[in-house]
Amino acid sequence: MKIGELGEFGLISRIASGAADGRGVITGIGDDAAVTALSPGMQLLTSTDMLVEEVHFRRLWHDPYRLGRKSLAASISDIAAMGGIPRWTLLSLAVPPSTPLEFLDAFTRGFLALADEQGVALIGGDTCSSRDCLTISVTILGEQEPERIVRRSGACPGDDIWVTGTLGDAALGLELLEKSEICTSLTADERGYLISRLLDPPPRAAAGRALAEAGLVSAMIDVSDGLLADFGHIAEQSALGGTIRLDALPLSPAFRAAFPSHPASCHELALAGGEDYELAFTAPVANRRKIVQLMKRCGIDAAPVGIVTALPEVTAVLADGSRYAPRNKGFNHFA
Amino acid sequence: MKIGELGEFGLISRIASGAADGRGVITGIGDDAAVTALSPGMQLLTSTDMLVEEVHFRRLWHDPYRLGRKSLAASISDIAAMGGIPRWTLLSLAVPPSTPLEFLDAFTRGFLALADEQGVALIGGDTCSSRDCLTISVTILGEQEPERIVRRSGACPGDDIWVTGTLGDAALGLELLEKSEICTSLTADERGYLISRLLDPPPRAAAGRALAEAGLVSAMIDVSDGLLADFGHIAEQSALGGTIRLDALPLSPAFRAAFPSHPASCHELALAGGEDYELAFTAPVANRRKIVQLMKRCGIDAAPVGIVTALPEVTAVLADGSRYAPRNKGFNHFA
Repeated sequence: MKIGELGEFGLISRIASGAADGRGVITGIGDDAAVTALSPGMQLLTSTDMLVEEVHFRRLWHDPYRLGRKSLAASISDIAAMGGIPRWTLLSLAVPPSTPLEFLDAFTRGFLALADEQGVALIGGDTCSSRDCLTISVTILGEQEPERIVRRSGACPGDDIWVTGTLGDAALGLELLEKSEICTSLTADERGYLISRLLDPPPRAAAGRALAEAGLVSAMIDVSDGLLADFGHIAEQSALGGTIRLDALPLSPAFRAAFPSHPASCHELALAGGEDYELAFTAPVANRRKIVQLMKRCGIDAAPVGIVTALPEVTAVLADGSRYAPRNKGFNHFA
Repeated sequence: MKIGELGEFGLISRIASGAADGRGVITGIGDDAAVTALSPGMQLLTSTDMLVEEVHFRRLWHDPYRLGRKSLAASISDIAAMGGIPRWTLLSLAVPPSTPLEFLDAFTRGFLALADEQGVALIGGDTCSSRDCLTISVTILGEQEPERIVRRSGACPGDDIWVTGTLGDAALGLELLEKSEICTSLTADERGYLISRLLDPPPRAAAGRALAEAGLVSAMIDVSDGLLADFGHIAEQSALGGTIRLDALPLSPAFRAAFPSHPASCHELALAGGEDYELAFTAPVANRRKIVQLMKRCGIDAAPVGIVTALPEVTAVLADGSRYAPRNKGFNHFA
């Protein structure tokens, strides 16, 4: 069955039937607007992301279930980067009428599975037809106490620069999908891991919230366009700079296996490859031990990878202290 | 200059530079998520709409300035239908790289002009490239006191059915754009009025809010898919029905001029034509005079057009009491 046969209201009912109630939801899907109540004393966090077929994803590579998960994960990651608690989401889809219903069903299952895991309720959206590309727009709403919210602008000179998890896996996963002839020495498990970091990135919501609520960090952002570009936003908004140590970048075993001799392209992917959806944050040096312990409790690693400088310039240095100039400065639409 | 030359961050800066501060905005565009504060005692209203080129609009007809206005108006209309106060908006654009910068500038000017008129602040969004169609996604956030929020589900048997303004103008405006050979007796002013009701619909935010805050209405919806379909949602969610009197439908002078002999197509457009963005609401008969007076103070007319019935069926009747069966039951994507 194709979407064209189901019709707009059939599609909405189909998606809505899987949506669960959530904290603070007074009226969910089905009225002109959703009605929700913030928890007492909380401020509202809002972000929105658009994913376009053949620009952000290809159906050839992205199975619909994981595409659904990733569509929401990218938005939850924005709330995590503010130290917020993700609460509610709205999902809009512009769908070519020829789209198989199974594709949309699997997409919705994936989206709602991650929503459920993260305690996020689907409260609204829009569906319409499109000519030839599937376009997905996700809005996420979260909340946090005003004094706990972490912005990009709070970094201080001398702060450590940290990242959670590992970098470059998603970018390498994309290369593996694009070029079957590279990294042939990788095992099937290693390939699977790297590709799944691209197709199903885990949003660091628990980690971002925990760091914010413990008051340990001065600035935070999610790494969606590459660490260099994204730390660049912290630097710019804090009117500071920073030095990132390439030998300190956390790399997964699979990533290391792909680059046994550590060529420049390895740094390139880890520094400027997009879609890792890890968190980059800055914190006073005195918080180092507490941060490592807190992240352990959240089930992930975090590594200090550099230092915030008063000089408003972001540089990357090799292990010998020499400067590394990346070819690629991060993803830029239209560029 | 084309968007492709400006780049993603250039485009974001260009849009953000026109965004004004707004009530409750703590952190606007430029972080991972916007931070806002609801007014004390208020609940949050959220809605999102997607507009796709060649589905919802054609650049041939929709000049970019009015397209920008309409993109926001459709969303504000959803907040109006809940009796809410529109506060903040997020704008996402998937843009073909060949789009002229002047088009995007005029679109943004229109969007922000209506935002300013309605007291709405642009607090975020997303921009990306698309292959060949401009896709616009707008999220609107509003607020209202819990006991003032009006839902679709509150209608009671015996309530009047009302609509604001006039019906069918936008649908006739669309026909005028599609078929240059029809309604040739209309003056240029009349044509201009009807087409502008399609291209630049005024959102009934003040009226919706006033009706809700005065506690005069039992259920409300905005008329975007035609009165018959949209009142159908009130009927369905209130588990009731209704009778709409065709001779009571409010028609503009220009609309009447196009149909001097009132053929069936006139009823068809007024009953089932989309995109009027008027409000349809139900209210106890005792509130009639107060509603007319209140709407006058909001600068628009409102007309009772029927009655809510306990029988769960929505019908339209002609002046002689006979039943009218419309050919078209309202717009349905994919249908």
